[in-house]
Amino acid sequence: MKQKPERIDQVVKAIVPLETEWIEKAKARTAQLVMPTRALGILHEISERLSAIRRTLSPSLTHKAFLVMAGDHGVVAEGVNAYPQVITGEMVKTFLGGGAGINVLARLIGADVKVVDMGIIPNLVPGELQGGDRLIVRKIGPGTANLAAGPAMSREAAEQAVMTGFELAAALIEGGVDILGTGDMGIGNTTPSAAIGMVMTGAEADEMVGRGTGVDDDGLLRKKRAVTRGIEVNRPNPADGLDVLAKVGGFEIGGIAGCVLAAAFFRRPVVIDGFISTAGALIAHAICPAVSEYVFAGHCSEEPGHQFMLRHLGLEPILDLGMRLGEGTGAALAMGVMDASVRIFNEMLTFEEAGVTEKS
Amino acid sequence: MKQKPERIDQVVKAIVPLETEWIEKAKARTAQLVMPTRALGILHEISERLSAIRRTLSPSLTHKAFLVMAGDHGVVAEGVNAYPQVITGEMVKTFLGGGAGINVLARLIGADVKVVDMGIIPNLVPGELQGGDRLIVRKIGPGTANLAAGPAMSREAAEQAVMTGFELAAALIEGGVDILGTGDMGIGNTTPSAAIGMVMTGAEADEMVGRGTGVDDDGLLRKKRAVTRGIEVNRPNPADGLDVLAKVGGFEIGGIAGCVLAAAFFRRPVVIDGFISTAGALIAHAICPAVSEYVFAGHCSEEPGHQFMLRHLGLEPILDLGMRLGEGTGAALAMGVMDASVRIFNEMLTFEEAGVTEKS
Repeated sequence: MKQKPERIDQVVKAIVPLETEWIEKAKARTAQLVMPTRALGILHEISERLSAIRRTLSPSLTHKAFLVMAGDHGVVAEGVNAYPQVITGEMVKTFLGGGAGINVLARLIGADVKVVDMGIIPNLVPGELQGGDRLIVRKIGPGTANLAAGPAMSREAAEQAVMTGFELAAALIEGGVDILGTGDMGIGNTTPSAAIGMVMTGAEADEMVGRGTGVDDDGLLRKKRAVTRGIEVNRPNPADGLDVLAKVGGFEIGGIAGCVLAAAFFRRPVVIDGFISTAGALIAHAICPAVSEYVFAGHCSEEPGHQFMLRHLGLEPILDLGMRLGEGTGAALAMGVMDASVRIFNEMLTFEEAGVTEKS
Repeated sequence: MKQKPERIDQVVKAIVPLETEWIEKAKARTAQLVMPTRALGILHEISERLSAIRRTLSPSLTHKAFLVMAGDHGVVAEGVNAYPQVITGEMVKTFLGGGAGINVLARLIGADVKVVDMGIIPNLVPGELQGGDRLIVRKIGPGTANLAAGPAMSREAAEQAVMTGFELAAALIEGGVDILGTGDMGIGNTTPSAAIGMVMTGAEADEMVGRGTGVDDDGLLRKKRAVTRGIEVNRPNPADGLDVLAKVGGFEIGGIAGCVLAAAFFRRPVVIDGFISTAGALIAHAICPAVSEYVFAGHCSEEPGHQFMLRHLGLEPILDLGMRLGEGTGAALAMGVMDASVRIFNEMLTFEEAGVTEKS
């Protein structure tokens, strides 16, 4: 295991692109499997990239874990959300109890779920809660400041959020996790995610700002204005990921960015979920563009701006099921498909083993 | 359990549309689950339809089984395929040995695989083969006749193929299977499937005839000509499913049609795979249009005509992964998503159970 870095620049220096040599080796294995040429489409691309990430022709996804990053957002003061802010903490408790969407889907694929208080308003105490052993409290602050009026957080807080995500992901990887999934919880967090999306991709507010959990027409207008004003007031620099995170981001988004950086640093695959997780990946990508090769886009969210974010990262989503829940649910479903991809790669017989005639 | 019918008209008479009352009851359950309104998209539509099919608010997909229908095709004489005909039997043996794509994916989701000789050329004897207990020999004939020169089979053979599929599916359902998947094997079988697709949907040869397992440009031209000539010579009647099956179909396609009819008859969900399975569903749909409500389209195949078939059936595919293998592989992957949908419906807490504030 690599020595753990203490600063982001040390992380960035150690991240390298995938070796095409391993992709080619994996493609040669796929070509031997008993089926018409590459007849399982995206499944082959997944297993080949996993092979290259792990530098092996026997990739394994046995140990799976989710980091569900939670944070609150000062921008809810602008009336951008359909649900009250108290729900952030209530949903964190639901994750701990095992009754939320991500818990159900993680059980199905055999993944662990850790919930991280990156900066929610309430102070939850693990020892006092059912399922409290799932909770990791690494609060950067009790919610961000209102990004429409000034920076959401300081640059130091942004760096701390990213390095916290990095450390938590690193600990899971050191514990033997083969694949990481990212999830989020935070009432209001489609607003900073849309702001990050606009800054990074150059898309307009009308393209990037959607209804999130289901805000009405007036709320949508307020949300577009809040995002636009946030960008005008703060002038984030798209070439500087930490600047964008500090000015228009969120604590949990920084945590997700750190998780993506850790995956690339330790050469493990990471599956991002929807709009918020992809905003986190955009921050990581701005910090270190090579991270994208270690990232799998779990699904395409119903949030309309998501496609612009994915295009910017050069990622094709595995699933498109009309989902927009967050929590990591889209990533969990995609991990099921990735499991299938690895099983095919490892278990399907070759033409030779099966004694089947090859193409004439 | 219903009394088993002996004739197709008895099957058709007993198939009824889903009750909207059960869809509404299931939607009311979804609305209580602790998430923004219908935030898991297609997952809700799946679980609600499963509820209506089974008339329950606790749908279960515990016992899963695949019927992989195999047959040979006289039309290969026209030079329409990239692979030699001997592969049909070789792949059937690979299915029995457990080393093919469908075996790998069925293991992942815990589904049984039965392989049916509906009419392949070689005579495989279950007792002489490794994994022979997976093989069911119900041969209608040693491959079909060349559909480009005359009917692929007699009307009696077509009826026998459909009722064979019906009986085999009925036996699985009586044995406790909650969900059926259809798969196929048969060198040349994208050709009859394309013919069925053209007859049923009205699409042109250029829209419906694709490369199958990977035929070259000359082969594609021969394939289009064979399909076009087959339709001209035979003049199948699109209002008469058995006529279309007899004239331009295949034994395994008839078996799949029977499987779809059995699902609707016994009120069980059936997941169809790609191009060939959907041709089977088109035959079943022509025989009894109400079957569609019991059918889930596992994925959208790379075969370009598949989308026209699905549109004709009013079905949206669950997955789109660029796959074109057949065997039931797309259906198996989709069953994983359906498992997730049922788990969410059954296991996710309600707002009330979770103690989470509802939308303001």
